[in-house]
Amino acid sequence: MISRLQMAAILIAWSLLSAARADEGMWLFNDPPRKLIKERYGFDLTDRWLEHLQKASVRFNSGGSGSFVSEEGLVMSNHHVGADCLQKLSDKDHDYYRDGFHAKTRAEEKRCHDLELNVLMSIENVTDRVNAVVKAEMTAEQAFLARRAIIAEIEKESLDKTGLRSDVVTLYQGGQYHLYRFKKYTDVRLVFAPEQQIAFFGGDPDNFEYPRFDLDVAFFRAYENDKPAKIEHYLKWSKAGAAENELIFVSGHPGRTSRLMTVAELEYQRDQRLPYILSRLYRMEVLLTAYSARDAENARRAKEELFGVQNSRKALNGGQAALLDANLIKSKKAAEEKLKQAVKDNPQFKDAASAWDRIEEAQKAIGQHAVRFNLLESGDAFRSTLFSIARTLVRAAQERPKPNRERLREFGESGRESLEFQLFSEEPLYDDFEQLKLADALTWMISQLGYKDPLVQQVLMGKSPQARAGELVSGTKVKDVAVRKKLYAEGKAAIDASNDPMIKLAQLVDAEARAARKIVETQNEIKQQAHAQIGKARFAVEGTSTYPDATFTLRLAYGAVKSYEENGRRIPFQTSFAGLYERAGQQKYKPPFDLPPAWVKRKGKLDLKTPYNFVSTADIIGGNSGSPVINRQSEVVGLIFDGNIYSLALDYSYTDLLARAISVHSQSIIEALRKVYDAGKLADEITKSR
Amino acid sequence: MISRLQMAAILIAWSLLSAARADEGMWLFNDPPRKLIKERYGFDLTDRWLEHLQKASVRFNSGGSGSFVSEEGLVMSNHHVGADCLQKLSDKDHDYYRDGFHAKTRAEEKRCHDLELNVLMSIENVTDRVNAVVKAEMTAEQAFLARRAIIAEIEKESLDKTGLRSDVVTLYQGGQYHLYRFKKYTDVRLVFAPEQQIAFFGGDPDNFEYPRFDLDVAFFRAYENDKPAKIEHYLKWSKAGAAENELIFVSGHPGRTSRLMTVAELEYQRDQRLPYILSRLYRMEVLLTAYSARDAENARRAKEELFGVQNSRKALNGGQAALLDANLIKSKKAAEEKLKQAVKDNPQFKDAASAWDRIEEAQKAIGQHAVRFNLLESGDAFRSTLFSIARTLVRAAQERPKPNRERLREFGESGRESLEFQLFSEEPLYDDFEQLKLADALTWMISQLGYKDPLVQQVLMGKSPQARAGELVSGTKVKDVAVRKKLYAEGKAAIDASNDPMIKLAQLVDAEARAARKIVETQNEIKQQAHAQIGKARFAVEGTSTYPDATFTLRLAYGAVKSYEENGRRIPFQTSFAGLYERAGQQKYKPPFDLPPAWVKRKGKLDLKTPYNFVSTADIIGGNSGSPVINRQSEVVGLIFDGNIYSLALDYSYTDLLARAISVHSQSIIEALRKVYDAGKLADEITKSR
Repeated sequence: MISRLQMAAILIAWSLLSAARADEGMWLFNDPPRKLIKERYGFDLTDRWLEHLQKASVRFNSGGSGSFVSEEGLVMSNHHVGADCLQKLSDKDHDYYRDGFHAKTRAEEKRCHDLELNVLMSIENVTDRVNAVVKAEMTAEQAFLARRAIIAEIEKESLDKTGLRSDVVTLYQGGQYHLYRFKKYTDVRLVFAPEQQIAFFGGDPDNFEYPRFDLDVAFFRAYENDKPAKIEHYLKWSKAGAAENELIFVSGHPGRTSRLMTVAELEYQRDQRLPYILSRLYRMEVLLTAYSARDAENARRAKEELFGVQNSRKALNGGQAALLDANLIKSKKAAEEKLKQAVKDNPQFKDAASAWDRIEEAQKAIGQHAVRFNLLESGDAFRSTLFSIARTLVRAAQERPKPNRERLREFGESGRESLEFQLFSEEPLYDDFEQLKLADALTWMISQLGYKDPLVQQVLMGKSPQARAGELVSGTKVKDVAVRKKLYAEGKAAIDASNDPMIKLAQLVDAEARAARKIVETQNEIKQQAHAQIGKARFAVEGTSTYPDATFTLRLAYGAVKSYEENGRRIPFQTSFAGLYERAGQQKYKPPFDLPPAWVKRKGKLDLKTPYNFVSTADIIGGNSGSPVINRQSEVVGLIFDGNIYSLALDYSYTDLLARAISVHSQSIIEALRKVYDAGKLADEITKSR
Repeated sequence: MISRLQMAAILIAWSLLSAARADEGMWLFNDPPRKLIKERYGFDLTDRWLEHLQKASVRFNSGGSGSFVSEEGLVMSNHHVGADCLQKLSDKDHDYYRDGFHAKTRAEEKRCHDLELNVLMSIENVTDRVNAVVKAEMTAEQAFLARRAIIAEIEKESLDKTGLRSDVVTLYQGGQYHLYRFKKYTDVRLVFAPEQQIAFFGGDPDNFEYPRFDLDVAFFRAYENDKPAKIEHYLKWSKAGAAENELIFVSGHPGRTSRLMTVAELEYQRDQRLPYILSRLYRMEVLLTAYSARDAENARRAKEELFGVQNSRKALNGGQAALLDANLIKSKKAAEEKLKQAVKDNPQFKDAASAWDRIEEAQKAIGQHAVRFNLLESGDAFRSTLFSIARTLVRAAQERPKPNRERLREFGESGRESLEFQLFSEEPLYDDFEQLKLADALTWMISQLGYKDPLVQQVLMGKSPQARAGELVSGTKVKDVAVRKKLYAEGKAAIDASNDPMIKLAQLVDAEARAARKIVETQNEIKQQAHAQIGKARFAVEGTSTYPDATFTLRLAYGAVKSYEENGRRIPFQTSFAGLYERAGQQKYKPPFDLPPAWVKRKGKLDLKTPYNFVSTADIIGGNSGSPVINRQSEVVGLIFDGNIYSLALDYSYTDLLARAISVHSQSIIEALRKVYDAGKLADEITKSR
C-alpha cells in the first residue's frame, strides 16, 4: 500500500510521460471518439449503440450517475450516491445509511424525499443561435444579459414544444452551447442498499487506495403514476464480467475538470480558489467530527455531510498537490506557448491573440470579488438548509414576476418544476445541527470579511455567531413545508410582510450577493468569449477531435481493464471476496475493517473466488460515481465508485500511467445479493434479461 | 449536559454580571492577595506558608505544573502533562501513553528523554535596573536592544552568583521585570501513569464539560546524582480532601491570559491572530486524524500531538467565541474609556494619554508582519522536529560567538544548559511523520505567502511540498544526536561547510525570519513602554492591588469548592466512582466511554462512594494543568486538570458565575492506586507524612 505522500514524487514522472494520452477523454455523445476507438480497439461506435447507452444512463440530482438495469425502472448506482436519500429517509430509530435497506416487495420500496433522476433524451447544438445575439459593440454585461435571455428563450421554447426539462449547457468554456432535453423522474424509491460498512470497507485508510474491497452499490426504482416506470433502454447484465485488457465503456456525469483552463486560470485555482475551499473544508471536517463524537444520534445526523466533506477535502488536496508540482504548470505553459505562437503566425486567428490576456484580467477581477461571492452568493456565510430555503423563497418572489428572459438562470421556467420539487422537500431538519453549521459559517464569514465589515455587523445584530445562529434557527418558520408553500405562492407581498428572521437575513444580504454575482457573471462572459476564440484556434491547429471539460452532463469514457505497476510491484487488475476477508483479518476486524454481521455469518456460502473490485484506464472524475461500466455488447460488467490516489490529478490532465478508475465487479453484486442479502428476486430482475 | 453551542448565550449574562470579580486572580508569590483573602475567608497568608508552597511547586518544561509530594523527590502532575514523556518513552511495542506505566521498584523508574523540572527559589524585582538603561531619546529598536542586553547581564550575573537558572520575566505587559531563580532537575523519571482511557475518560464528548470522571494523574521522581532528590518543601496529603465551600489554593503556572490587553489588542486577537491559528489548527487536526486512521502505529505516533492540537483548538475556539460576543468588547471598552478619562484629567499621567494610540499603532505594525513572523520565525512553515533542531544548530553557531548581552534571548548563558538538554534529546523521531507534517507546513506556507513569493520558490526548489519534504527528511543527518553534538561543538565553520539539506533550509530562511522578529520585537518594546505607563495610571486610579496576565510563571490562585447552576439545574461540586460506572453504563461502554480492563475487574474492590472529580472557583487557565489544590494546612486535596466549558472565556476576563476549575480529588488518587493498580507502596509514600 502506498502512502499519499508518495504521490507527488510520482506525479513528476507522470507529467513528463503523459504525452501519449492513451484512453483519454470524457466525450460528448453527439461527438464521440469513433475514429480513436476504431483505431485503438477496432470497435465501431454505432448510432444505435450510442443512443441505447445514452438513454439507459441516469443522472442523480444529488450529484452522481446511474443506469437503468431492468425494464421495470430499476436504477443502479453507488451507495454513496444514494446516501443523500438514505440519510433523509433515516431517523433516530432507523439508520438506513449505516445499516442498509432491502425492500422485499414493491410495496416496501421507500420513496426518496427529493431525489430527481434525469435521462438525456436529445442534444441540439444551439451555439450559433446563442452567439448571434451577442454583438461586437456590446459591453460584457450587455453580452451576458443577451446570452442569458436567449438561453432562457431556447429552454422555454423547448419545454413548451417537448414537455421535457430543457437546459442549455455551456461547453468548451464557452466555445459551444448545446440544448439538452431530459426526461425527469421525481418519484424514485429505494430498493436496496448494503451496510455502509461494506460499501465503504476500509474507510479513510483505504480510501483512494487500491486494492479495494467495497460493495458500493445501491438500487432504486423510478416510478411514473405510482407504477414502476416502463423502460425501453436499459442495460443487460454480463454473464462473466470483464477480462483483463478488455475494452470497456463508462457512461456518466463527470462533474468538473479543469483541463482546458489557461495557465492564469490554473494559477488562480492553486493560489486562491483551492486554499479558500480547503480552509473551509478543514474547519467543517473538525466541526462535524467533534459534533459526531458527542453521541450516536449526532453521528447519524452528520454522517453523510461529514463523508462528503472528507471526500471533497481529499480530492481537492490531491488536486492542489498536482498544481503545486511545478512540472504540471510547466507542461501546461509549454502547450499554451505553442498555441499562442501558432495563433500569432496566423492572421485568421487575430481575435485569439489577446484572448489569454483577457482571461487573465477577467480572472483577476473575479479573484478580487471571489470571497464576497463565495460567502454571500454561494452562501458559505450561512451554510444551513434553512437559510437556503429562505434565500430561494426571497429570490423566487423577486424573479418570478419578471419575464422569463430576464430572470436569474435558476428561476427560468424550464427548471421550475425541479426547483419546486427541491424547495418543498420534506427532508428532516435538526435545529441543533442547523445551528451548529450556521454559527460556524457566520464565524467563517467574520474571519473572511472582518468583524467590522458593515454587512457583518448587520448580520450579527450585536450578537455572537452562536447566539445569532440560535435565534435564527429557532425563530424561523420555513422549517414547515406548508409555510414555504404559502410564502412561495403569495410571492413578494408575503415575503416583504414576513417577520421571519431567516427570510429577513436572506433579504438583508441579497443586494450584496447579487452585486458580487453580477461581477462574476460579467467577467465569466469575457472569459467565455476569449475561450471560444482560443478553442477555434486550437481546433484548427491541433486538427483533432477533442472533448470539453466536465460539466456534470453525460459523457462517454472508454479504456481497458488494466493492472499497473507501483514502485516496481504489479497491482492486480481485480480483487476477490477472498481478499476482503484477508484484509479484514490482517486488520483484526477493527473499524473501519470490521465486517457487517451478515458478511461474517454468510462467509461459508459465498464463492470466495468471485471477482470483487477491478480497475480500468477509463477517464473519470467526481460525478462519475455510479456510472455503469459496460462491454462492447452494452452489458454491465461493473459499477464505477472511485479512483485510486493517482486519479486525483485527473482534474488537470489525463494519465494512464498509474491513475485508475475503480469499479465494483458485476459478479460480486449478484453473488452478494443472493448469498448475503437473500435478495434473489432483485438479482433475478437484474439478470433475467441476459 | 450542556452543549457548547449554548455557551455564547450564557456568556452574555456573564459579561454583564462579572463585575463582582469574586475569587479572581493569578497572583504573584511576591505580591499575594493577603488582604482579599483575609477579608473574604479570614485566612492569613504568612510568609512561611507562601515559601513552602512556592518551593513545593514544580514547573514542567513540556508545559504544565506539578508539585513535590514526598521527601524523596516524588512529583505529582497530570497524565496529560506527563504525556510528552510517556509518548517519547513509547515505541511500537510499548505504548505507555495509552496503556499506562507502573514502576514497582525504584530501579524500574524510567528516565524521561528531555523533561526538565523547575522550582522557583527566589524572586527579585529588577524593574528599575531594567528601565534605567532605556533613555527617552532612544528609538524603540535601541531601547529593545538596551533592555535585552541588561536582562542578559542580570541573568548571567545571577547564574554566576547562585548557580541557578535565572530568568528575567516581563510582567504587567512591561510594567515590571522580575528576576526568577530556578532550581533545575533534568534527571526525571516516570513512576506511575494510568491508562489514557481513564485519564481522559469520556474523551472529546465530555471534554470541557462537567460532571467529569477522569483520573488525570501521573507521578514522576526527580533525581540528583542518580539518587532520588531530597526535598525539603513537599506537600502533605489531606486525609479527607476538601468539603463543599471550603477555601482552597492552587499553585501553578498559568500559560497566557489577555486580560490587561487594550481593546485594540483584543481586536487584533479576534480579527487576525485567532483566525490564523485556528485555521492552522483545523488543518493539522485533519492531517493528524487522517494519518492516525491509517494504522495503529500511526495513531500511536501522532497521539500526543493530535491531543494537543485538539485541546488548543477547543480552547481557542472558546476564546474566539468570547471575543465575538460584542458584550465582552463593550465592557472592555467602557473600562478603557473610564481609565482614559482619569488619565486625561490628571497631569501626572500625561505620558499615558497617548499610550493606547501607541499600542494600537504598534499592534497594527505587528499585524502587517505577523504572517511572515509566524511562518518563518515561529516556524509554522516548517513544523517538524528535525527543522527545529537544524534551526537551533544554525542559530547557535551564529549567536554563541557573540557577547552574551548581544545574543538572541534563547541563546543567553543562563538558559544554555536547558537549551542543550533539549537539543540533544534522544527522543524517537519517525521519518514518515516528520515528512507528513513538513509537507503540510510547506503547503500552509504557500497558502499564506503565495506560490510565487521568492522565498517560497527558494524553499521549494522547483519541487512539490511533498517531494521537497521527502528529500529534506530523508536527507538530513541531524536525526543523529552525535551529529548534532558535533555540529554544535564545531560551530559556524562546520555549519557553513555542511551540506545537510535541513541545515541549508534553516540557513536559507534565517535572514527573513530575523527581519520579521526584529520588527515584532521593536514594536513590542513600544507596546511595553506604553503598557507600563497605563499600568501606573491604573494602579493610581483603581488603587487596589492587582495581578499581571499569565506568563507561564508561578502564580497563586484561590477560591472555594463550589457547585453551580446551569439552565436551572444545580451541578454538584463533586462526582464519585459510582458516577464513573454509571456514565460508562449509560454510554454502553462504547469508546470513549469504555473502561480499562483493570477498572472493570476491580470495581468490586473500590469504595464507589469515593469522591472523584470536584470543581472550584479558582482562577486557572492552560498551564495550570497538574497544579496541586491545597487547603489552609497546605495539604493536597486535589489536582487541577481542566476547566469546564465556561472557563474557556477566562483568557479575557474572570467569572465565577459558571466557570469552574476541575480537579481530581485526592482520595480518588489513593483509592485507585491501592485498589486498581496495586500501587500501595506509592500510595504509602504519598500519605505516610500526614
